Amino acid sequence: MRAFTLFTLLASTALAIPSPKISSVRKPGWRGGPNRRRDIITNQVNTTSSSPSTTASKDNIWAYLTNDEAASTIAFLHNQTDLNLTSVEDAGDWDNTIMVIDLLVPNKTDALAYLDGNGTKPERWVLASLLFGATEEPYAQDWVVGPLPISEKTTYYPYTFGTHTEDAKIRIYDMDSAYDLYVNTSMEIKDIISDILNATIDTEDDLNANFDIWGIDPLWHQPDEYGNDRVITWVGFWRYPDPVQSQNSSINFDGETLLPQGLYFQCDITGRDPSKYGLMGILYGDEYYTSTAEFRSAWEKPDFKKYTPNMQGDWVGTDQAGEQLPLETLPPPRNIQPGGQRFKVDEENKYIEWMDFTFYLTFTRDTGMRLYDIKYKGERIIYELGLQEAVAHYAGNDPVQSGTSYLDTYYGFGPYAFSQIPGFDMPLYAYCMNTSFHAAEISKSHRCGISIFEADQNYLIQRHSSQQYISATKNIALTVRSVSTVGNYDYNFDYVFYLDGSIETIVRASGYIQSAYYAANSEYGYQIKDGLSGSMHDHALNFKVDFDILGTENTLVKHVVEATDVKYKWNNLTRSTMHLVRKEVTSEDQGKMNWSANGQEQVVIVNKDAPNKYGEPRGYKIMPSRGGAGMHLTIKNSSNLINSQGFADHAYYVTKRKDSELRASSAWNDYDTAKPLVDFNKFFDGDNLEQEDIVMWFNLGMHHVPHTGDIPNTVFSTAQGGMIITPHNYLLSDPTRQSTQQIRINYNNDNSTTDVYTFGSQQASGDVNLDQVSWDPYTYYGDVAVRKFPYDPQNPFNDTESIV
Amino acid sequence: MRAFTLFTLLASTALAIPSPKISSVRKPGWRGGPNRRRDIITNQVNTTSSSPSTTASKDNIWAYLTNDEAASTIAFLHNQTDLNLTSVEDAGDWDNTIMVIDLLVPNKTDALAYLDGNGTKPERWVLASLLFGATEEPYAQDWVVGPLPISEKTTYYPYTFGTHTEDAKIRIYDMDSAYDLYVNTSMEIKDIISDILNATIDTEDDLNANFDIWGIDPLWHQPDEYGNDRVITWVGFWRYPDPVQSQNSSINFDGETLLPQGLYFQCDITGRDPSKYGLMGILYGDEYYTSTAEFRSAWEKPDFKKYTPNMQGDWVGTDQAGEQLPLETLPPPRNIQPGGQRFKVDEENKYIEWMDFTFYLTFTRDTGMRLYDIKYKGERIIYELGLQEAVAHYAGNDPVQSGTSYLDTYYGFGPYAFSQIPGFDMPLYAYCMNTSFHAAEISKSHRCGISIFEADQNYLIQRHSSQQYISATKNIALTVRSVSTVGNYDYNFDYVFYLDGSIETIVRASGYIQSAYYAANSEYGYQIKDGLSGSMHDHALNFKVDFDILGTENTLVKHVVEATDVKYKWNNLTRSTMHLVRKEVTSEDQGKMNWSANGQEQVVIVNKDAPNKYGEPRGYKIMPSRGGAGMHLTIKNSSNLINSQGFADHAYYVTKRKDSELRASSAWNDYDTAKPLVDFNKFFDGDNLEQEDIVMWFNLGMHHVPHTGDIPNTVFSTAQGGMIITPHNYLLSDPTRQSTQQIRINYNNDNSTTDVYTFGSQQASGDVNLDQVSWDPYTYYGDVAVRKFPYDPQNPFNDTESIV
Repeated sequence: MRAFTLFTLLASTALAIPSPKISSVRKPGWRGGPNRRRDIITNQVNTTSSSPSTTASKDNIWAYLTNDEAASTIAFLHNQTDLNLTSVEDAGDWDNTIMVIDLLVPNKTDALAYLDGNGTKPERWVLASLLFGATEEPYAQDWVVGPLPISEKTTYYPYTFGTHTEDAKIRIYDMDSAYDLYVNTSMEIKDIISDILNATIDTEDDLNANFDIWGIDPLWHQPDEYGNDRVITWVGFWRYPDPVQSQNSSINFDGETLLPQGLYFQCDITGRDPSKYGLMGILYGDEYYTSTAEFRSAWEKPDFKKYTPNMQGDWVGTDQAGEQLPLETLPPPRNIQPGGQRFKVDEENKYIEWMDFTFYLTFTRDTGMRLYDIKYKGERIIYELGLQEAVAHYAGNDPVQSGTSYLDTYYGFGPYAFSQIPGFDMPLYAYCMNTSFHAAEISKSHRCGISIFEADQNYLIQRHSSQQYISATKNIALTVRSVSTVGNYDYNFDYVFYLDGSIETIVRASGYIQSAYYAANSEYGYQIKDGLSGSMHDHALNFKVDFDILGTENTLVKHVVEATDVKYKWNNLTRSTMHLVRKEVTSEDQGKMNWSANGQEQVVIVNKDAPNKYGEPRGYKIMPSRGGAGMHLTIKNSSNLINSQGFADHAYYVTKRKDSELRASSAWNDYDTAKPLVDFNKFFDGDNLEQEDIVMWFNLGMHHVPHTGDIPNTVFSTAQGGMIITPHNYLLSDPTRQSTQQIRINYNNDNSTTDVYTFGSQQASGDVNLDQVSWDPYTYYGDVAVRKFPYDPQNPFNDTESIV
Repeated sequence: MRAFTLFTLLASTALAIPSPKISSVRKPGWRGGPNRRRDIITNQVNTTSSSPSTTASKDNIWAYLTNDEAASTIAFLHNQTDLNLTSVEDAGDWDNTIMVIDLLVPNKTDALAYLDGNGTKPERWVLASLLFGATEEPYAQDWVVGPLPISEKTTYYPYTFGTHTEDAKIRIYDMDSAYDLYVNTSMEIKDIISDILNATIDTEDDLNANFDIWGIDPLWHQPDEYGNDRVITWVGFWRYPDPVQSQNSSINFDGETLLPQGLYFQCDITGRDPSKYGLMGILYGDEYYTSTAEFRSAWEKPDFKKYTPNMQGDWVGTDQAGEQLPLETLPPPRNIQPGGQRFKVDEENKYIEWMDFTFYLTFTRDTGMRLYDIKYKGERIIYELGLQEAVAHYAGNDPVQSGTSYLDTYYGFGPYAFSQIPGFDMPLYAYCMNTSFHAAEISKSHRCGISIFEADQNYLIQRHSSQQYISATKNIALTVRSVSTVGNYDYNFDYVFYLDGSIETIVRASGYIQSAYYAANSEYGYQIKDGLSGSMHDHALNFKVDFDILGTENTLVKHVVEATDVKYKWNNLTRSTMHLVRKEVTSEDQGKMNWSANGQEQVVIVNKDAPNKYGEPRGYKIMPSRGGAGMHLTIKNSSNLINSQGFADHAYYVTKRKDSELRASSAWNDYDTAKPLVDFNKFFDGDNLEQEDIVMWFNLGMHHVPHTGDIPNTVFSTAQGGMIITPHNYLLSDPTRQSTQQIRINYNNDNSTTDVYTFGSQQASGDVNLDQVSWDPYTYYGDVAVRKFPYDPQNPFNDTESIV
């Protein structure tokens, strides 16, 4: 679920402080509670005492905005009277506010001129997403502000260049809360609710203490009998888990999405006057009623069928439960780093050097961690790599599941990329990098938003043995990790760099499923608890990879293994064999593709103008590495997503790169999926793709039909997808031969092992003190917030906010 | 390549000792050198001082034959005068010999009676593969011998029950070496060879010192002009790598398969009289000549085109080469086991208990490591799991590549599952298990044939965070590993057990590619070196998994995610959505299947008679986990494999389990692929599959079109495939909740972290001495051999033999 709920039980002593960004992108049914300001605790997360540093030769031109940049931009915008902005702290529904301030990345031409030549450092520009509430037809709009620092040269204008709607605007249809309607309707039938949901609801407080009411995302539009567009929502009842008392605190397990109650309201929420919002229908037990009266009449009949409500209990929690397994409490194997950190960091530029890879990191509110300018052996191979959008598309016999297709960048992967836990999310010796974003006039930082670490991959990278010798090379890889808990799901994002020149992109999902009520839902999932159905859904996470193989002019080719019958000159009989067929994708008209059956297509990005000495074009191959073959949405024309699913209905895509086509989606598409701010399908306009600057967009995903094993949480081990890119005729031989972490043993000769080669690799020996690299979990504090308007940089405070 | 070559350079002081099994399954062109007996060194490989032990409640009834069992069986067979056996040591081509002695596994009914009830322990029976050379039409034949121990009750008879040819016989067409023909032909054109291959060949010794001559596998049959069946081979020239001198010894890098010379002989080798074998043609530079005279005539012309021969050099070696990378020589991260071993071993029964899994291990000459009776939480889920066959199918413009389709169990995965290297193939703390096999009247043991170890998987298995707490569980898994170097390739086999009840089967390939000569070969691979083409080939490795989900009666069902349009009662408009469609595979007529496009089919083995409390049948899902979607052969009707590729032309299969259908292939199918001893296609005879004892056979594989990065070795990182089976509505919730290796941190409350739960997991602290668990590579000795006929158990000797 994605309703933004703060736990009122915990906020009883709340003070008035600025509500963070999420109040600006709330959904219908949102009922935020205020938040407490706290003193900042600036704890150092890194447990490694020293780590090798470096200095990037060029500045990180994709670095997210500093606190000062964000604050000055916000102040600049507030000075523009035509925007009529109200500070978020003071704003109501009928005000204009600033939602998000983020970097507008430089044009690639300018960036390359700076990075590769004598070009000046590109100016810093801002993409500001504003919310215009002071109108009958509220909308979000993307604006460009720049250059920074703010000066007389600084201008601002709508970002029409990079969006597909008029004036970069997208309509908002849920600016005003319909929660009163849900509450009033509930109170009309509080006796029925008490009966069928096994609760005692006398007052609104009773209702609020027991149930959360929220529903479909995105909203529906449908014509009324006169053909007028009406805005429709369906909401369902969800039960709150009870608090769990600990020694010093009380928490609630975040399992509300396991507690659907099977009662749904259909509401017309057209227009800006909540008093005119109206109930259209009620669904319970797969029966549809057009009014509370009709529902009451049915309920009063003796044959009214009551279903099992989902009640909270220990089963919703994730704590250790059940029998302890033999020897399981003993300390398990773990990675140590006896030689210290073997990569270098330019902390200020978020620049990493590991072996013969270098790259820059940055972070955005919408999509979280991003990588730029990935070089291998001094040559750029990827200009940009990162998540574009994640869709979770549900289906069900009830309208809330059927109507749910989360576009998760709406909520943002940045805000919820909470600080990682040393020793769990990462080895204790990992390097931690702070990440920040600026939303709703608050800047937040995740203390360990990105972890970076080497680890042994538990299998070799190279091996060969004979009766004379054995040769083996360790597979030590570098992982760059960020984990975002977007509501119920925890998405673990890894970029893994290997000694063979490969880079793997992996996404894994854990956390709570969003489940469905079981009544008559067997066509859409398994029954997994007394009143529960695992709600079937598809995940598709789209990634952009802007390859630059030895320059920007590249071509996507397919080297296909095909069966064939051939009569060779050296044989009278026709032979049934196979051969390699080379194909090229030369136009965007061919740019939407699926992985081939039986994996027979090798997909390679090559530079045809850069053949190797044998005439083969140098390139990088891309192929599915984990979790099957990179799945995409089952539904091609979703009633929920309409024109906003273009990035998710094929396995991968290739387009000509344009500065106006930076991202496959917009975070605000969710407001109006029929008229998205960024329509990925519009990228495909027949451009030539042969030796052009091309971009590949691939999906990772899974078809998730939750079963009993998803209770209480989905496990990462079987919910993962990966894609690997790997040098293909790129170098003249295998680069892992450079590694000294290998051994050759000559044996089986003269009755003994005669020679052992270790190639200069240093061996760890002696004592390792496990406490030197340890971490006190009582120092886990979550995020740091800085208020931006009015700017208050001297008073950061601890503040972590999740979606339920 | 698979020609069996012992390095004559090293065997100059050889004594006459029994030649091992491989002399009984040699290929045309084989020229074995003798081998030296050495004193045994009984080094303990396990570096862990103590490991928890257990005692299996039932004996391992699949245990491979003991040395005594093998010796007594061999003696028994030699006593049967009708078999007319000659001891391997004394045998020539015209003798009958024993190839392999292995356990004939008990019938499943008898096994289950013993394991699950009061049934007596099944008798031990032997499957003996005999080679009948003393006839004009030599053949291999599988025999049954038993019961053991040898007594008056012991009988022997052909294994017709489990094979598909008459009397369990398969014809051998290369019983007699054609090597003389290759040598004689070469000497006829030694001046040409010297010229085009850049060598000085004056004598046979020169030839033998420079070139290895071997070729297609399996052999071809084709009719002559009178319609008579002729047996054809094509052989090619391969150059030997030069020896590499080390301080105390000299080795040859095993890179002969990188040195094809582009000269091929076509020979008619029909019949048993090598003096009647004849040259049919010569191929060089994509030109075909029908005689040495025709070849000479062309060579003498001034326009004869000479191609670049492949010369040996440092590039063939795998030693560290190239620039050292920054910080790379420092000791890298590694796993340690501070709490000691957390699983229990019954060494005698090769029985393992890890967490709530138990299983037995065994080992066979043909297929190496096998798992039996895998139980999870006390219930059997898999009766048998293991490799069946591995095919490597090449293609090319030259007849040797085109004609090569290795069926690797012919060579055997057992003989080449050499001892693993602590600290490389496995963590230093791994548990090592000895494995043995009996072939050619020699028993051999791999000191660390199987390694077993826990490791942190470098990502969590469960995680969820909110603004109140964060919960995370470590992903500690158990790996059972065996590595077989079958000629040029090193196959790493892992079975990985996870805390969520999943078991993953992974195969990875490293080692040397078998390459092709570059002349006019671009349709079949990339040019990767001056005279070299990476020879395209498909790998398909078939595994048997005999599921027993809550009993033997199971059904394979597909739960398919499908798009659909639905008009719901709660909406006037038809919705474009998706739903779950349940299908069953009820007959072997539907038993050959491929993985669905976009992964939309969930494939589940269920017991329909064992629904869970919600009515969902309990089961295990099987899905591709690594390297795409489990690839199979491109070619459906290979001219090489003919009737022996049935197991490899689909992604997976399901059949009714029968004691007569134990394995998808026979190791001896390679002798005559048109008339295989075991024809997998014959398993599909329309049997009912609904609630029967069913077996799934799945393929892992890859389409390998080697590129420059495969020189000198293919790397495991991008050459791997995996399949995972995972509980599906099997338990009522996620079993990882039993793990204590998790943490819950309550934070963000009252300005601090308030509570930390570690659930009884013990924390490692203090000093770990890295030298306590270390290993001296000078103690790596390879295999131990025991001579069986005459039986000489008191004199084991070190002896490791590889295929080139």
